[in-house]
Amino acid sequence: MKSRKVLLPEGVQDLLIDDCIYRRHIEDKLMDNFIKSGYMEVNTPSLEYYDLFSNDYLASNGDKMFKLIDTNGGILVLRPDCTIPIARMVATKMKDFVYPLKLCYVQNVFRIDEEQAGKKREFRQAGVELFGVASYEADVEVIITAIESLKNLGLKNFQIDIGQVKLLRGILQNLTIEEKAKIGLEEHVENKNFIELDKLVDTLNIEEEIKGILKELPRLFGEPEEVLREVKRLPLDAGMLEAIEDLEKVCDGITAYGLEKYISLDLGMVTTMKYYSGIIFKGFTRDLGTVLLSGGRYDRLLEDFGIDCAATGFAFIVNKITKALKIQENLQVERNRHILVAESEVCLVTAETVEKLRAAGHIVEICLLKNPKDLQEYVQRRKIDEVIRINTKGEIEVLEDLGGW
Amino acid sequence: MKSRKVLLPEGVQDLLIDDCIYRRHIEDKLMDNFIKSGYMEVNTPSLEYYDLFSNDYLASNGDKMFKLIDTNGGILVLRPDCTIPIARMVATKMKDFVYPLKLCYVQNVFRIDEEQAGKKREFRQAGVELFGVASYEADVEVIITAIESLKNLGLKNFQIDIGQVKLLRGILQNLTIEEKAKIGLEEHVENKNFIELDKLVDTLNIEEEIKGILKELPRLFGEPEEVLREVKRLPLDAGMLEAIEDLEKVCDGITAYGLEKYISLDLGMVTTMKYYSGIIFKGFTRDLGTVLLSGGRYDRLLEDFGIDCAATGFAFIVNKITKALKIQENLQVERNRHILVAESEVCLVTAETVEKLRAAGHIVEICLLKNPKDLQEYVQRRKIDEVIRINTKGEIEVLEDLGGW
Repeated sequence: MKSRKVLLPEGVQDLLIDDCIYRRHIEDKLMDNFIKSGYMEVNTPSLEYYDLFSNDYLASNGDKMFKLIDTNGGILVLRPDCTIPIARMVATKMKDFVYPLKLCYVQNVFRIDEEQAGKKREFRQAGVELFGVASYEADVEVIITAIESLKNLGLKNFQIDIGQVKLLRGILQNLTIEEKAKIGLEEHVENKNFIELDKLVDTLNIEEEIKGILKELPRLFGEPEEVLREVKRLPLDAGMLEAIEDLEKVCDGITAYGLEKYISLDLGMVTTMKYYSGIIFKGFTRDLGTVLLSGGRYDRLLEDFGIDCAATGFAFIVNKITKALKIQENLQVERNRHILVAESEVCLVTAETVEKLRAAGHIVEICLLKNPKDLQEYVQRRKIDEVIRINTKGEIEVLEDLGGW
Repeated sequence: MKSRKVLLPEGVQDLLIDDCIYRRHIEDKLMDNFIKSGYMEVNTPSLEYYDLFSNDYLASNGDKMFKLIDTNGGILVLRPDCTIPIARMVATKMKDFVYPLKLCYVQNVFRIDEEQAGKKREFRQAGVELFGVASYEADVEVIITAIESLKNLGLKNFQIDIGQVKLLRGILQNLTIEEKAKIGLEEHVENKNFIELDKLVDTLNIEEEIKGILKELPRLFGEPEEVLREVKRLPLDAGMLEAIEDLEKVCDGITAYGLEKYISLDLGMVTTMKYYSGIIFKGFTRDLGTVLLSGGRYDRLLEDFGIDCAATGFAFIVNKITKALKIQENLQVERNRHILVAESEVCLVTAETVEKLRAAGHIVEICLLKNPKDLQEYVQRRKIDEVIRINTKGEIEVLEDLGGW
């Protein structure tokens, strides 16, 4: 008999029994919350044409996708992102639906050398996308949905940082400096490396006012009210002021909903996803250094598919939420009562009783073991609550002494 | 603005809102049934090494897999089957678990030019695998699980055909005839093409008794009692008699459970999956010409991974079950009450009332529309049950006249 390769490829994993219990619990709770908030589930294929992810996304992530050749010679990829395929689906198949269109999903995502999910190359994202509302209310709605979903899961000490791509990107777009300098600025801002940022800004041949803003913006993060007060002191142009006002409205909407303790602002927030066009946000817990969720507004993405439609949304990284809940010891999954039917012969009456017990919500297993010692071990290790026998009248007899049956 | 490719690759599909409602309903019901029967969910990665599927499986299906090159140069495939990866996982990671080990899953499967799923290249399978029980009771258990799952979904007029690979394969293995003739025999048996089968058998240089069995076996299908009576008249050897007795015990076990009306025998059943080693079965409905589920015993597969462990199981093809339920008009999904909160400003009291209504099981959307005409259209098209306003005391006021608010 030939032996087979038993190793797994890098970055992918088996989920054993407990992993699946947690995953199902978390995903069901998240999806339930999305659906109860009026979002409707959709699903896109794992395989898409490579070209779908060209334009902005590919520029930075092209070499991070799993590519394969289709039978017709076309280049396919395993979906590295859920938002672009859903935007494609909406633009091509859901134009005639009624808007606002609130969609949600839970899907596998595939990326090579992805930092976000902890070196996982296949991981699960659960998220929402809200199409057709250009105003700040939609951003409030999706951020509230994110917060309520995490609250309902029992996660504590989490925080959503909110930023705005129009600020830093707005300034950089108007500057006539080298591309290399722009990339350097973004890097230093992302890493909150203020020393290097200041050094680089000082070398630039730009207005002193702009230099001040470039140095100041990334230092503005934390409690919204304070950050907003500080930023308004800067000499901002009309476009930037509008972007700031937008941020303020979003914060006010979340505060009105009583969820202000979960948010903070980060005016230096940058994103590698180039489709974002306004408010962006990322979620963290103090217990875990990595991003649990990320999202934002992408009003121009659907133009690429031929329709004009405002959009905003976010995605949770399921395994990060699982990890955070585990660290906090807040991951409790209800167990159903587990009953073992110790019968050597099953008859019609047994069958009816078993089906009734299952319909009542219990796990009911018919015993496949014949040896009492094996049975005892099985009962113990599977943590079975009750071993029963069903008599010919369909009556249940609980077996107390497993050694003696 | 560049436009992006919006076509989907061949054989994959978007699932829009209703598709997802049905899929979630069906998968949740199936998994609930598996779990209530004592199976525990596991999950394997979409990507596996190509070598995993070598040996028997690859021989017939090698060119039906999606292949890609890993970053380290290894050849990967998108999982074309769930049983082999789960066997790998059990053999490498679950040896120390308590047996019998009852596992279940719902996963995407990828195959090129697959007939079974109706030209779909990515489709969903939900199934169970039972490890550690070599006797017929385990086959009874998994077949009963399949039947009860379909019954609980509301599917009518379905039937599980049960066969046994040891019969035809047993005879063919002992015959010293050309490989081409063996393949021809299997093909004619599979297609129940008795004229061609008889012609081919007559050309073979083998014993008359064997010729009789080869012609007779594929004609033996239908009601179990009758088929078993007929087959026992044939001059079978000890191994074949044992295989028949095994079939008889399986049928008796299912009959004892009161599910005999769902089964029939097909002694000429063949399978392309070479890992099967005993009882095999396939499920159909009269309303759909294709297989809804398939399964069987694979006692030798785990030897390839270095452990000796009997195993049996089956997989449902989710989209086929959906299709059958739709044809039968037996696909009813309960709708939650859908409430729209028509508020221009959300406050803390609104938030509390909304969360309470959601916790009570309702879908509660906060209105993002400002124009009464848009609201009316939205209410109508989304089939919203109730439009409410929440006052500052948290009290609910139902809005009857949407035009007037």
